[in-house]
Amino acid sequence: MTRRSELDDLLAAVAAGAVAPSDAAARLAALPFLELGFATVDTHRELRQGAPEAILAEGKTIEQVLAIALALDAAGASSVLVTRASPEVRAAVREAIPQAEEHELARAVWVRRRVPEPRGLVVIVSGGTSDGPVVHEARIRAELLGATVIVHEDVGVAGLHRLTGVLPDIARADCVVVVAGMEGALASVVGGLSPCPIIGVPTSVGYGSAHGGTTALNAMLSSCVDGLAVVGIDDGLGAGSVAARIARGRSAP
Amino acid sequence: MTRRSELDDLLAAVAAGAVAPSDAAARLAALPFLELGFATVDTHRELRQGAPEAILAEGKTIEQVLAIALALDAAGASSVLVTRASPEVRAAVREAIPQAEEHELARAVWVRRRVPEPRGLVVIVSGGTSDGPVVHEARIRAELLGATVIVHEDVGVAGLHRLTGVLPDIARADCVVVVAGMEGALASVVGGLSPCPIIGVPTSVGYGSAHGGTTALNAMLSSCVDGLAVVGIDDGLGAGSVAARIARGRSAP
Amino acid sequence: MTRRSELDDLLAAVAAGAVAPSDAAARLAALPFLELGFATVDTHRELRQGAPEAILAEGKTIEQVLAIALALDAAGASSVLVTRASPEVRAAVREAIPQAEEHELARAVWVRRRVPEPRGLVVIVSGGTSDGPVVHEARIRAELLGATVIVHEDVGVAGLHRLTGVLPDIARADCVVVVAGMEGALASVVGGLSPCPIIGVPTSVGYGSAHGGTTALNAMLSSCVDGLAVVGIDDGLGAGSVAARIARGRSAP
Amino acid sequence: MTRRSELDDLLAAVAAGAVAPSDAAARLAALPFLELGFATVDTHRELRQGAPEAILAEGKTIEQVLAIALALDAAGASSVLVTRASPEVRAAVREAIPQAEEHELARAVWVRRRVPEPRGLVVIVSGGTSDGPVVHEARIRAELLGATVIVHEDVGVAGLHRLTGVLPDIARADCVVVVAGMEGALASVVGGLSPCPIIGVPTSVGYGSAHGGTTALNAMLSSCVDGLAVVGIDDGLGAGSVAARIARGRSAP
Amino acid sequence: MTRRSELDDLLAAVAAGAVAPSDAAARLAALPFLELGFATVDTHRELRQGAPEAILAEGKTIEQVLAIALALDAAGASSVLVTRASPEVRAAVREAIPQAEEHELARAVWVRRRVPEPRGLVVIVSGGTSDGPVVHEARIRAELLGATVIVHEDVGVAGLHRLTGVLPDIARADCVVVVAGMEGALASVVGGLSPCPIIGVPTSVGYGSAHGGTTALNAMLSSCVDGLAVVGIDDGLGAGSVAARIARGRSAP
Amino acid sequence: MTRRSELDDLLAAVAAGAVAPSDAAARLAALPFLELGFATVDTHRELRQGAPEAILAEGKTIEQVLAIALALDAAGASSVLVTRASPEVRAAVREAIPQAEEHELARAVWVRRRVPEPRGLVVIVSGGTSDGPVVHEARIRAELLGATVIVHEDVGVAGLHRLTGVLPDIARADCVVVVAGMEGALASVVGGLSPCPIIGVPTSVGYGSAHGGTTALNAMLSSCVDGLAVVGIDDGLGAGSVAARIARGRSAP
Amino acid sequence: MTRRSELDDLLAAVAAGAVAPSDAAARLAALPFLELGFATVDTHRELRQGAPEAILAEGKTIEQVLAIALALDAAGASSVLVTRASPEVRAAVREAIPQAEEHELARAVWVRRRVPEPRGLVVIVSGGTSDGPVVHEARIRAELLGATVIVHEDVGVAGLHRLTGVLPDIARADCVVVVAGMEGALASVVGGLSPCPIIGVPTSVGYGSAHGGTTALNAMLSSCVDGLAVVGIDDGLGAGSVAARIARGRSAP
Amino acid sequence: MTRRSELDDLLAAVAAGAVAPSDAAARLAALPFLELGFATVDTHRELRQGAPEAILAEGKTIEQVLAIALALDAAGASSVLVTRASPEVRAAVREAIPQAEEHELARAVWVRRRVPEPRGLVVIVSGGTSDGPVVHEARIRAELLGATVIVHEDVGVAGLHRLTGVLPDIARADCVVVVAGMEGALASVVGGLSPCPIIGVPTSVGYGSAHGGTTALNAMLSSCVDGLAVVGIDDGLGAGSVAARIARGRSAP
Repeated sequence: MTRRSELDDLLAAVAAGAVAPSDAAARLAALPFLELGFATVDTHRELRQGAPEAILAEGKTIEQVLAIALALDAAGASSVLVTRASPEVRAAVREAIPQAEEHELARAVWVRRRVPEPRGLVVIVSGGTSDGPVVHEARIRAELLGATVIVHEDVGVAGLHRLTGVLPDIARADCVVVVAGMEGALASVVGGLSPCPIIGVPTSVGYGSAHGGTTALNAMLSSCVDGLAVVGIDDGLGAGSVAARIARGRSAP
Repeated sequence: MTRRSELDDLLAAVAAGAVAPSDAAARLAALPFLELGFATVDTHRELRQGAPEAILAEGKTIEQVLAIALALDAAGASSVLVTRASPEVRAAVREAIPQAEEHELARAVWVRRRVPEPRGLVVIVSGGTSDGPVVHEARIRAELLGATVIVHEDVGVAGLHRLTGVLPDIARADCVVVVAGMEGALASVVGGLSPCPIIGVPTSVGYGSAHGGTTALNAMLSSCVDGLAVVGIDDGLGAGSVAARIARGRSAP
Repeated sequence: MTRRSELDDLLAAVAAGAVAPSDAAARLAALPFLELGFATVDTHRELRQGAPEAILAEGKTIEQVLAIALALDAAGASSVLVTRASPEVRAAVREAIPQAEEHELARAVWVRRRVPEPRGLVVIVSGGTSDGPVVHEARIRAELLGATVIVHEDVGVAGLHRLTGVLPDIARADCVVVVAGMEGALASVVGGLSPCPIIGVPTSVGYGSAHGGTTALNAMLSSCVDGLAVVGIDDGLGAGSVAARIARGRSAP
Repeated sequence: MTRRSELDDLLAAVAAGAVAPSDAAARLAALPFLELGFATVDTHRELRQGAPEAILAEGKTIEQVLAIALALDAAGASSVLVTRASPEVRAAVREAIPQAEEHELARAVWVRRRVPEPRGLVVIVSGGTSDGPVVHEARIRAELLGATVIVHEDVGVAGLHRLTGVLPDIARADCVVVVAGMEGALASVVGGLSPCPIIGVPTSVGYGSAHGGTTALNAMLSSCVDGLAVVGIDDGLGAGSVAARIARGRSAP
Repeated sequence: MTRRSELDDLLAAVAAGAVAPSDAAARLAALPFLELGFATVDTHRELRQGAPEAILAEGKTIEQVLAIALALDAAGASSVLVTRASPEVRAAVREAIPQAEEHELARAVWVRRRVPEPRGLVVIVSGGTSDGPVVHEARIRAELLGATVIVHEDVGVAGLHRLTGVLPDIARADCVVVVAGMEGALASVVGGLSPCPIIGVPTSVGYGSAHGGTTALNAMLSSCVDGLAVVGIDDGLGAGSVAARIARGRSAP
Repeated sequence: MTRRSELDDLLAAVAAGAVAPSDAAARLAALPFLELGFATVDTHRELRQGAPEAILAEGKTIEQVLAIALALDAAGASSVLVTRASPEVRAAVREAIPQAEEHELARAVWVRRRVPEPRGLVVIVSGGTSDGPVVHEARIRAELLGATVIVHEDVGVAGLHRLTGVLPDIARADCVVVVAGMEGALASVVGGLSPCPIIGVPTSVGYGSAHGGTTALNAMLSSCVDGLAVVGIDDGLGAGSVAARIARGRSAP
Repeated sequence: MTRRSELDDLLAAVAAGAVAPSDAAARLAALPFLELGFATVDTHRELRQGAPEAILAEGKTIEQVLAIALALDAAGASSVLVTRASPEVRAAVREAIPQAEEHELARAVWVRRRVPEPRGLVVIVSGGTSDGPVVHEARIRAELLGATVIVHEDVGVAGLHRLTGVLPDIARADCVVVVAGMEGALASVVGGLSPCPIIGVPTSVGYGSAHGGTTALNAMLSSCVDGLAVVGIDDGLGAGSVAARIARGRSAP
Repeated sequence: MTRRSELDDLLAAVAAGAVAPSDAAARLAALPFLELGFATVDTHRELRQGAPEAILAEGKTIEQVLAIALALDAAGASSVLVTRASPEVRAAVREAIPQAEEHELARAVWVRRRVPEPRGLVVIVSGGTSDGPVVHEARIRAELLGATVIVHEDVGVAGLHRLTGVLPDIARADCVVVVAGMEGALASVVGGLSPCPIIGVPTSVGYGSAHGGTTALNAMLSSCVDGLAVVGIDDGLGAGSVAARIARGRSAP
């Protein structure tokens, strides 16, 4: 087990030129996890499941987020993604890792290292403009995991004819992700038209009886359309992960 | 104020031939309410609001239901409707008032006296076959209040093309009633297509995350379609009442 | 389908004088919807349902609200209404569209273009002074859709005699809207007195067991008064829409 | 502490004539509580608070109910009241204590021993006929504790004019008890008219959004009328207790 | 009905010396309510129920609070009490009515005019120091309505021996008010010891499973102690009102 | 649109030998839906989405279930599956369609017509023996849609070593379905070990804080494992459908 | 891994006399778990944690319960305990294993094999007679795991003086278990007096606001007494397990 | 009873040198509680239960926290711990009591006076880095009560292999505390491996369906692992208290 000092030692050795960066990465990548004291980073996850651990910034200090991001990066993750990150966290990550990219609406910051060759098509449709943050979190995650993604925003059921422009993409998708708040009815409507697996993402958009996304969640879970499964409220990350996994599997060469 | 004995006296006098039935009815109709001890029957409601009091059988003994039904009937209600009535209650009412009619699925029994000339069109659409009891409770109430009613059952959003046969009726309706359980998405879909007022009726159909109709209710309340209002879970009676009131008003000569 | 660039092109052409504004409006009005990338504006809704799409500002950036407002305006909406808008959003809309009007308490900003000739009377009564924001959101929407509106505020059931001044207006209304928080009992009391359809609007006024409006909502849904239907918590917009639709229908020439 | 055997011994001694019944009662009444193994009967409560312990039959076996009732009776309680009792429990109590009385609708069975001279007026009003079981449980308890009780049933707010017959009694009451299910609005209406303390009792009458009495409870708790306090759902017993205590206190000689 | 202009006219006349203040008050006091546009002030309430309307500041603008306070004051209320008032509201009231008093912790500001001669003893006990705001809101209201009040704070059940100093006051109280958050057990413990009526006030003190006061509320409602009734979460005002009404009634000369 | 009589006519013609069964099936299969009055059967669904409509028996009469089953069968569905069926419903279906099969624990009855050639591996693991009904509903559905299914029951996390026998199957699965009630932790544990998409199915197994499956549902939705999506409580049918769709897609030739 | 047939083979061999029962038990006890198809029995648990798996009968068929019980028994469990068992299940277990014992109120049936020498004192106190089933389930489990148990029933806080007889036992206990429904206040009161760890067990006793035990649960979790932890609603089994573990640990020789 | 002035007098006398500090402490320690007006400090608790009262800063003013802390300190508490303290409160305590220590993440400030000799081992494991505040609150409390504590953070079930480094410590622990938010599955996994009592602490970490810790709480309560009990959401203090009590008891000499 690598205790914190061990990681520190290794990084120090690299900084001092005593260990070549590529060697350090190899050593780290061989460890099943990294112990940082306040965190035990699962560097083995990508090997085991094909997707690196993502970092939820909420509830962590900037220093904790940075340390975990650097550890994953050092250990050879194909990408490092920080979600639900405040502007301060995003700035700190970009300063620490210059090639990091950022999406303000999605509150995300990430580093691409060895993103897999795209395979499989994920189509994301949303009920309203306000679902944007979740839509783009899902899109970024799915792209980092090697899926092609097409996005159609604001095609809610109150004006069904707006779906006409979306249907051809739904017909050729390997996985459809439906992002919707309020009553979440879009998942049922799109779900009744898609031949591929559908992932519903309820959002906390709406007020009053929307109950912070619980209504959309329960609506999607109660839907009787065939082939629909659901992730948690506002969980764009989870939707992107499972959609990419489904889509890449369906397009396997 | 008519105390119970007074009503009993009056009915006894009628039975004894001392008072002509038509005179008795006139006397009763002139009273604002009838006191039965366990009930204070609002015989004035129809005059005030155009619709007679309906009797919710649940939670009342057979004797109580019968006494209230007879009092309303005697006081000249245009119709007497008993809802959520067990087979025993329905049988008792039909025995006591021979011209009473019954609908088993709707758990309703009723007497028509002076139902108004039909005016205005109410179109009821439902999401599934299991919504039948609520559909027909709403239909019966609206018809007793003087509306014409057309019913389309089981046209849920999982197979949207089934709505095609319904659209012409929606286009000419004075009020559309949408009855749906589970995720209740039909209200949003139909609501986005109707030019007239829409009344949503969530039902307790479904299990698990349907939460006994709460999910459908919240979904309908969170819907952003224009022109939709909602009644309580499984409240076919309330839907029939307000729909008839809207439809008759819109078709006023 | 008009992609964003297409709209931009059209607007640019108008700005450059290459297309006459009236021609541009005609072209836009002929399209079923406008695609803005982050939004798919349903310009067809007014044709289909008689009421233009309203814009919920919450959860949208100022830029998004502005773009949607301008698109609706350009496409010929009879009115453009932005609800739940912060002071910043309201200021931005007023700057972009000089003839826009604003109501601070109601958090609304709107533009009147071709508001229909008033027809039908909507009477709004509220339980308390704090319900004001919802009362006025409902009033503004109903007026923009072509209804005449009378407002009576703070006539809650704790002092029933205050209703005496309201009863004559209730008696001649085509639709009554009852706005109330806390226990929402006003809907039942007014509902028992009105011969026309009644729309209840629960508000989030109150604390503790008021549960953010859920208590008032459930109370209105559980009420056994005849002719009452309900919209979501604090949903003044929805109440104004359905009330105007009912009232205009009942007064059709 | 009197262990079970001690009570058994005492009862046996009485049965055998070795101890005079009046002596036995005196001995028991002097003990602070009786231990029955499965129960520790608080015989001291009446001395401490002026009201004997009541027995909730639900969740107890018939044998347990009987043993507790006999112990209270033997220890000199002014009355013994068993609530929420099945027909079997009621029959068993009446067989064991011949002078016991029963009310079928209220599911209650009780014995009067030394009920205090009536003092203070409790007026109970209910919203509907189905609230009857709770109304009568409250009435019986208050009468057993020495209050005079007047009952008005089924005067719900949907027909407010029915309250006219009730107002004179409300004006002279020492405590008003309002029993109502569904939206519970009657408590607010009556509460706004009463000069004495008001006790609200929400009932589980209603379906759907009535949520088993929770809606009526929350409505009563959210009411802003002055002088209203509330007991638990369907808790006629608690209402009768506190109302009698208030009413007797206000009429103290 | 006095429309706003009428009130304004009257106040202007007083300011101009055309009407003597005592005459103005008499005129106002004779009106059943005052219409301010955004409010319909129930000046008749004190006559009807013995307690003047209190003003909940939350959800009202400073201008609205001030106008209602001045209207009540002008109409001759025995006291004017503003609750849940921000520092800004309290300062504005004190500036407008110089003799107003303030309690920072209780967030209250009030004016005493003709507070009744004290009669009856209310004893308030609280579970913890953090319940202070609710304790003092209840105390102030009860004192303004003419009750004597004694307060014991922070005697929660985790250290039961602390109740020893409180018991003598409980024994001589006319009404006991128990204010407690978290698990609210103090109401059951004190309730089992008090011979007079007990009013429980659940507070939102606590975190996690305290659920903002709902746990304490449900606990108090589920308690089987005799003679306990409950008001809403954090509703010190309501507790003070009903307690004063009970206590004054029990000590009537 | 085929009205009921049309279907009846066709079936009668077949029975009479006037139309060959294969011709009748072809005619029916060409229709987008069948109208039965109380139901509008979506015979087009299999064409559109690859899976025939399933029949939820709960809330339908035996006659309704039978009529829908026969209509689907007649219209050429690859399989007809009735779920949540009482013993009476299952017996009626087996009598009407002799080749129907039944699974008592799963409360299912079904007919296989042209089940697709198996492709793709679904592995179902459950937390406890009591999850059996849901496990087998999912298995039957997935098999009818053309997936190979392996089941491992009762390998909950309280004895993690029991998973050792399951890991090889998880490693080669195309989709893993985790069925668990109570705290639903198995989804997180298995989800952290699977490289393929995982579908969680919360069940209503457990009492008290299990809250009828809501706890397991929320736990699965809150899980941070990568690649997990969830269906509704006890929704074995939905899990089988989406799992088959995923697994068949991943093994496409 | 032992597949079902292996267990069957072994049992058959014992029945046939080919394997000595003691040898069979040794073979079984050496296996980490037993696979029965519908169950994977964790025979290793007692070795790992000191307590054998208990069998929750609810949701299992009689055949399943019996098979698991026999498997545990055969594998050498120190005791076999079946909880929440219907009379039919209890009878079947007693018929299959003649030395089994039964407790009707606790709905439990069990077999003692090698119960450990008693060590450590668990004191169980309950709030009311109706908590009996949970009290005795906890007692039986703790006794089977080798603790001495003393029970005091019905000493709820409404009559605090009843605790006097219990205090000496609390003072010498190694672990106190408090079983209470309704408002669950007993846990706070006893918890404030006990020097040892306290385990709270909320029960579903009570109606209305007791919410099936949720109120008692939340109350116990919100309690601020020191040294209290809680198990699930009605979970006597869990309480008995953890209490025995604590008590035996504290009395270790 | 010591009224506030008495405490003030005593402190003044100490400050003036009239009373020796050690004498003052002895006088205070002899009192069962200290009355501060807004607080009744339970100085007797440590004597009764072995642990001094802790101070929850939330909901108290800085002055109140300080006064209670000084009173406990003066009365001879072995330690004084203030939890959920803002930076301002922590600074004030450190200024008033210079030897006070602080932990920023845990929001705690405390004074060690006579911490008992360490006895018994508590092992705390957490599911994620964001659980840190609760982990350290529990650690600090347990250490102040005289337990040895080892902490392992971020070993959640999504990467089970990270537990390998923790197992040896679990095997030798006297009590294991599991701190986890989101789905709380770690309690079940660790609970299935520990031979000693396990205390679960659900945290409010997570969003959406985590419902502020309720999901983790319900999951832990529904877990069927043997030997697990639970404290409230985010209640590190309570976990530290009960764990120290268990661990010290198990290691008693």
